[in-house]
Amino acid sequence: MAIDYKKELEAAAKSMILVHEPDVLIRMVVRMIVQKVEVKHAGILLHQKEQDTYILTVSRGTAGLKIPAGFARIDADNALILFFKEHKDKELFDDGMLVLEEAKKLLEKDISAQLKELLEQALYQMEIFESVACIPSYFRDELLAILILGSKENGEKFAQDELDFFAALASDVAMAIRNAQLFTELELELDKKQKLFIHTTIALSAAIDAKDHYTRGHTARVTNLSLEIAKRFLQKNKKELDIKFLEDVNIAGLLHDIGKIGIPESILNKQGPLNEEEKKCMHEHTLIGVTILQPIRELDQAILGVKYHHERYDGAGYPEGLKGEQIPLIALIISAADAFDAMITDRPYRRALSKKEAMEEIKRGSGGQFDPEVASLLLELYQEGRI
Amino acid sequence: MAIDYKKELEAAAKSMILVHEPDVLIRMVVRMIVQKVEVKHAGILLHQKEQDTYILTVSRGTAGLKIPAGFARIDADNALILFFKEHKDKELFDDGMLVLEEAKKLLEKDISAQLKELLEQALYQMEIFESVACIPSYFRDELLAILILGSKENGEKFAQDELDFFAALASDVAMAIRNAQLFTELELELDKKQKLFIHTTIALSAAIDAKDHYTRGHTARVTNLSLEIAKRFLQKNKKELDIKFLEDVNIAGLLHDIGKIGIPESILNKQGPLNEEEKKCMHEHTLIGVTILQPIRELDQAILGVKYHHERYDGAGYPEGLKGEQIPLIALIISAADAFDAMITDRPYRRALSKKEAMEEIKRGSGGQFDPEVASLLLELYQEGRI
Repeated sequence: MAIDYKKELEAAAKSMILVHEPDVLIRMVVRMIVQKVEVKHAGILLHQKEQDTYILTVSRGTAGLKIPAGFARIDADNALILFFKEHKDKELFDDGMLVLEEAKKLLEKDISAQLKELLEQALYQMEIFESVACIPSYFRDELLAILILGSKENGEKFAQDELDFFAALASDVAMAIRNAQLFTELELELDKKQKLFIHTTIALSAAIDAKDHYTRGHTARVTNLSLEIAKRFLQKNKKELDIKFLEDVNIAGLLHDIGKIGIPESILNKQGPLNEEEKKCMHEHTLIGVTILQPIRELDQAILGVKYHHERYDGAGYPEGLKGEQIPLIALIISAADAFDAMITDRPYRRALSKKEAMEEIKRGSGGQFDPEVASLLLELYQEGRI
Repeated sequence: MAIDYKKELEAAAKSMILVHEPDVLIRMVVRMIVQKVEVKHAGILLHQKEQDTYILTVSRGTAGLKIPAGFARIDADNALILFFKEHKDKELFDDGMLVLEEAKKLLEKDISAQLKELLEQALYQMEIFESVACIPSYFRDELLAILILGSKENGEKFAQDELDFFAALASDVAMAIRNAQLFTELELELDKKQKLFIHTTIALSAAIDAKDHYTRGHTARVTNLSLEIAKRFLQKNKKELDIKFLEDVNIAGLLHDIGKIGIPESILNKQGPLNEEEKKCMHEHTLIGVTILQPIRELDQAILGVKYHHERYDGAGYPEGLKGEQIPLIALIISAADAFDAMITDRPYRRALSKKEAMEEIKRGSGGQFDPEVASLLLELYQEGRI
């Protein structure tokens, strides 16, 4: 047996550990075996825990094996699976594998009717797969995978040292696959949690939105517009896609008016302009928002957007009267998106502006109410028809 | 070189892939090397990406090596690290390792002053570690770890095949460690996301709580009490600790009154009892809560708690007048916790009951307003002084 492909396969099996996609991994292995070992085809039957079935991934060599439709997935009670489950302690064959020729010899010996039937059925399954050798791999008590080998291109039998090598390879691969599966599960879990968090925040912010009759849908629109501006900002400044920044903008957008929950309905829904005292009360919503979110340390950046989204570039805003670069970028972005959306929706005391009119206001406010860079990004998005 | 420990170490290195705690893994490896190979001591310098330093984990053999304090962590600009970073292409030594004797020979040859200085400093570092051979392992371009070997107990030199074996082992271990690190990172991320979700839900539910002046802190208390009842229920029914159920109870507790955000303040904070029409309006909070949370598919179980927490065991509750076992367990639990907490706090139209008095009410309501099993669990918790 040529030693060269062994080394290559061993090295490949090792590097597999850090491939965390089970499908990619299996295709890599079977393709390698077919190419290097020159077998007609090779496949891996991989256990799918949830459904308790085994799925076949196969690599066709030059022979072009055709797996009958419906056989790409076999159940846990298939004879081939049962055979390896019931005979994992290697009492039948020294190496624990099922090699067609040896198995046929065993059938002629004095074995129980039950074993005979199981073995015959297992060999029938191997014939369907056109396989001459099947090599199981276990992890703890679980039959994790079966490596299915077609015959060699040159017609020779597999030598024992070749089979031993495949057994070692199969266990490496099984380990790598299990590892990849664990990784994938964890990633799915993470994705679910992230979605749950965002969806819950969306639902609760929408509910608070609904309190304020004049701003229905306002929160969602401000959030989307803020995200557009933020992405454009990152592009312009040739920064990498900063996922964390975009996440913060998303959350800050969703929660920027959360403090309105602390404002009396009589002020929130007042028909007509607010008097000075009512205005003062309304302005409190920024700091009420901060009070609500303060305990959540992970939101420290998003909170800056909530706190300062009514500051003005010229320093005439609230709550602190910050000026220009003192105002965090996230707040400058939400401020512009918030003001633009307010302009284009009806309010108790005035009708909505058209987008064109609102954009004129934004331009006029550049360097006054609005950060000039953010205002110009907003204008760009408008001119491109993106808003 | 005895082949037996090779096999053992190889098998161990493989099974390492599924050990996902880097610290445990490293301790396993160095302890094994010291025991099986009979070296005086062995250690691994592992790269810490965030700080860009290398941390030493060492296993003392019989010789009891003492690493000077302060040397358990070395910086990325340490000569030993620099040497392996700058000479990873094996142009100096065939095998890419640093073996004390060979390196000393090299020093006597005609090499550049710069290399000479670096090598001398690296060897000095090896002397501090009392190491006779250092074996690097890389992952892609990163120097991931250095395996540090003391001399053999029997005083003999390492044979080349032993060193080759260690090189293969070091690369297995490096791979396993990198894999474990990735896993740990992902798990931390997941934990952070879960906390972020829960903390945000707590903050927002507390904010809604605060709208209803008479129930300040109510949400948190109901949630905690519901969790106590749920845990006790699982114990009593000899069920395994059902994390998913407890998570659902936690969320349902936090959000059970979320629908109150849709109830006018005039009704929510009315001094004195509500009239029929106001009551009808107030009752809507259960279905408003459902409307808010409905889009979040992951919350389907928690939503049952929100929807039905005002149903009564005898069928006289709302919104659907469900009876007995028709009412989901999660709602029965929140209902009892909610009623108990309402009794022991002042309301606009009556003063608070003592816990003892409230418990009498719960007993009286068992089989009427309350599920008998849940009522008896609540009583048990009270008698044990847990509430």
